[in-house]
This record gives sequence, structure tokens and C-alpha cells, in this order.
Amino acid sequence: MPDAQPHPFDTAVALEPAREHEWRGHTSPAYANFIGPYGGITAAQMINGVMQHPQRLGEPVSFTVNFAAAVADGEFIVRARPARTNRSTQHWIVEILQNGETMATATALTAVRRDTWSGHEAVMPQVPRPQDVPRTPRRGVEWINRYAMHFFEGFIPRQWEGQGDDVSLTRLWTRDDPPRPLDFASLTAMSDTFFPRIWLRRAKQTPLGTVTMTVYYHADSAVLGKTGTDFLLGQAQGNGFRNGYFDHSGFLWNEAGELLVTTHQLMYFKE
Amino acid sequence: MPDAQPHPFDTAVALEPAREHEWRGHTSPAYANFIGPYGGITAAQMINGVMQHPQRLGEPVSFTVNFAAAVADGEFIVRARPARTNRSTQHWIVEILQNGETMATATALTAVRRDTWSGHEAVMPQVPRPQDVPRTPRRGVEWINRYAMHFFEGFIPRQWEGQGDDVSLTRLWTRDDPPRPLDFASLTAMSDTFFPRIWLRRAKQTPLGTVTMTVYYHADSAVLGKTGTDFLLGQAQGNGFRNGYFDHSGFLWNEAGELLVTTHQLMYFKE
Repeated sequence: MPDAQPHPFDTAVALEPAREHEWRGHTSPAYANFIGPYGGITAAQMINGVMQHPQRLGEPVSFTVNFAAAVADGEFIVRARPARTNRSTQHWIVEILQNGETMATATALTAVRRDTWSGHEAVMPQVPRPQDVPRTPRRGVEWINRYAMHFFEGFIPRQWEGQGDDVSLTRLWTRDDPPRPLDFASLTAMSDTFFPRIWLRRAKQTPLGTVTMTVYYHADSAVLGKTGTDFLLGQAQGNGFRNGYFDHSGFLWNEAGELLVTTHQLMYFKE
Repeated sequence: MPDAQPHPFDTAVALEPAREHEWRGHTSPAYANFIGPYGGITAAQMINGVMQHPQRLGEPVSFTVNFAAAVADGEFIVRARPARTNRSTQHWIVEILQNGETMATATALTAVRRDTWSGHEAVMPQVPRPQDVPRTPRRGVEWINRYAMHFFEGFIPRQWEGQGDDVSLTRLWTRDDPPRPLDFASLTAMSDTFFPRIWLRRAKQTPLGTVTMTVYYHADSAVLGKTGTDFLLGQAQGNGFRNGYFDHSGFLWNEAGELLVTTHQLMYFKE
């Protein structure tokens, strides 16, 4: 059966060339969050500006995005500028602009990788297989529907009674819905799928949002190709929570147990 | 006894105003690394550009630096530009320039913090007190001499026989030598003091260097003031090691057990 419709993720991250170092994109209702778009899709649009740049050298190795303001529904510009190009590495400064105002900033490192000794230390924990974990019923904002999430540890509190846990550890299997072969843009978006750790610690709703996220890509395109449409195991746990800001550290492994991403983020919260 | 000499750290991070958004600095022989300056001092010079900016709003909450090229001995320019200023947060794009070329890029978030619920999850492990751990003899490059390091777990291999460990966990007490009251610049520099995790995994020397480091500041100036010249407990452990790049996650606590910083970095290695 031919797949006539483009995948909603491809529609969301599509960019067309504008001026030098600039691309034009459009927010996607399919990835809407409470206010403005899901941060993971904004991050994916920014890394896609790097991926599409004709001067790009190598593949993403690290990426840090800072969410400076809520992106408004509609058009935006991705400005991706190679600030420094070395023999095998390249450093990028990236911005999302609307009406000339900076809505998000980012830096990225791309590199030509070579075969070396390898040995991941963050090994995949003992967990049930994805087919043995029922899909978690979807609820909430629109972008949640773009992922098949199978939580088996540390799910969102069922009661918001204000009595949280000491530990904010979450584990789940997740992938695009419908399934889509993994690439750097979708891996970047998936790095932001972890719900706020403070929900587990406090079981209380408070205004919050991600202010910065860093992704270290341990996977290159060969590993992404092997991973294809497999589920990814996601794990996240909070570190520090103090006076309006908290951070977590996360990992994504493929079903074969290869570490694809180490990712960290800082969120603000109101009270 | 009056302290006539300025502290070497203050000399190293000193900046004088140049053009708008630009400051002039000078590399410091006291913080020399194998090639060029210690990355932590470069990071501290960049955050100091933000600290000295007359338009700065609030205090550092997050900071990501990317080391694009080896800074040459001599003068440099720190360019620190507020890309977006909101009511209580501000986003910065920072660069180090020499001869008009970008040597390092960074982004930072500063914010006015308010009192909220707090509860660190990354609690300080059970460790000996700093006065019960002998100071580790100094050796190697010059910047090492600027810190009093008291290792008690996961020290640099004594023999480089190429037979490493499965786990690259390090714990130590550390502070400036001579002692200096902690501030955001010195806390940033100390976030980069962890030696390369791959040394513990492989017990083998290979060319390597930090390419990007992220610091999340859980401490505000009040906590820094309380910490003063206390020792900091540092802990770092590697995550992924693959095809030329590896990352670690680190923490710094003060002697009272307060989490000051969560920090992550990615290093390249040659083989």
C-alpha cells in the first residue's frame, strides 16, 4: 500500500532555503504543546538547518539549544552559521527568528568520525522488551500523539495530591507514531520527550518549561540506519531542584542496547 | 599580613572594555595546558564577559562552551551579546576571537531567581572529610598547580599498561590554591577540572581534548557566599565512548552537601 501522505515529522521539520545561512520553516499543529510548539520539534528544526547547510562537514556530535521565547504559530527563520571549520570538526551558531527577534539559540558541533576503540559505560538496564509493555494511553497535548510511549517505570502521577517521590526515575520504550526511520532530527526531538521530573517529585502542577537542552550523539548515521524504526529505551532522572530551576540527565538506547544519546536539560518552574 | 599580589585566577579572568559587547583579555601562563590555555580558564573568561556586561540581568543559570580551536598565547576578545532579554531571563551568545577568528563559542542563560520549593536529588555521597584526605602530589601541566586536589577514588592510573577499568568514577575534594572565595567564574573553571575519563577506562595515553562543556548552576550568589573558600566535592563518571568522542557527567557539592553544579562534557580522542 503506497504511503501517499508525508510523515508528520517530515512536514514539521521541512525547511526551504531563504538568504545565505537562512532557511524558512513553519510551525506544525501536529506538534503543538501547551503554549507554542513542542520544544523537541523546535530543536529538530534547528539541527535540520545544520543538516541542510551546503557547507556542513560531518555529522552532529553535540547540540545545545536554548529556548528564549515561545515560538508563535506560523513562519520562522532558522539561521545556521558555521562559526569555525577545522579539518574534521565544525562549530555552528544557530538561531530561530520571528519578525527579526531571537526565539531560540543553539550551538552545534559536527564532525567526521573515525573508527576507534569504543566501550559505552552507560549500559542499558535490565528491562522488559517493548512488545511486553502495553502502550500507555495517550492524553494531554497534541505532540504526545506523535509518539508511541510504553511506560513501565516512573509514569506521570495518577493523583496530583502534592505528595511526590524521593526519586524521579522514568523508563519507557518510545518511537515515532507512525514509525519512521530514525535520523539526527528525530533523535534530537526524541531527546526532549521526557516529561518534567518535578511532577514525580511533587505530584503538583506548576507552570514550567525547558530553558536549555544538550544532546551528545553517540550514534552516527550507520547506527541510526541499523536502528531504523525500532523502539528506543528512554531513561531520565532529575539532579538538582532549586529556586525556580531543575535539571535532569537522560539516555536513549536502541533495542540492541547501543547507547544513541546522552541528553541533559534544565527547566524553569514557578513555585 | 596584607595580600599584595592579586590572586592568579583574578589576573587570568581580568577583562577590559573594548567595543560594545566586547572585552579584551590575555591568556595566563599560570593556567597553561599541554597546548594553549586550560579550557576551564577559557570558559571562566567567557562567563566573565557576561558577568561584566552592563546589560546583564540576573545570575548564570546555564552555560555551554564549545572549544573550536586552540587559543594562542596572547590577547583575545570576548564578545558577549544578549540575544534575548525577557522579564526575568536573558539569553547570551558568546565568542572568543583572535585575529577575527572564532576560537570558542558559548551560550548562557542568566536569570533573576525567586525562592521556591527545592530538593536536590543528586545527594552528596558518603565520603571522607577533606581534612582526612591527603593532598594528591602535583604533577603535569601548569594549571594543575592552581588547584589543591585531594583524590580519594578513581585517581589517574599509576601505570599506563593499557589495562583499564570498567568504571570511570572519580571523587575528590578540590579548591583554588591559594584559597579564593568561590564565584561564578571560578565555579565554571572548576567544572572542567576532571581529568579525561578514558584514562581510567584504558590506562593508555592518546591525544584528546574537551570539545564542549555544559554547566547548570544550582548555586546562586548567596550559596556561593556561604561556600566561600571551602573545599568542593567533585564527582565524574563517563557515559558513552565511541568513534572518537566520549562524554562524562559531573557534580560539585560544597562541604555542607549543597549541590552547586551539574556539569557535562564531550571530549574527542584520537584512537
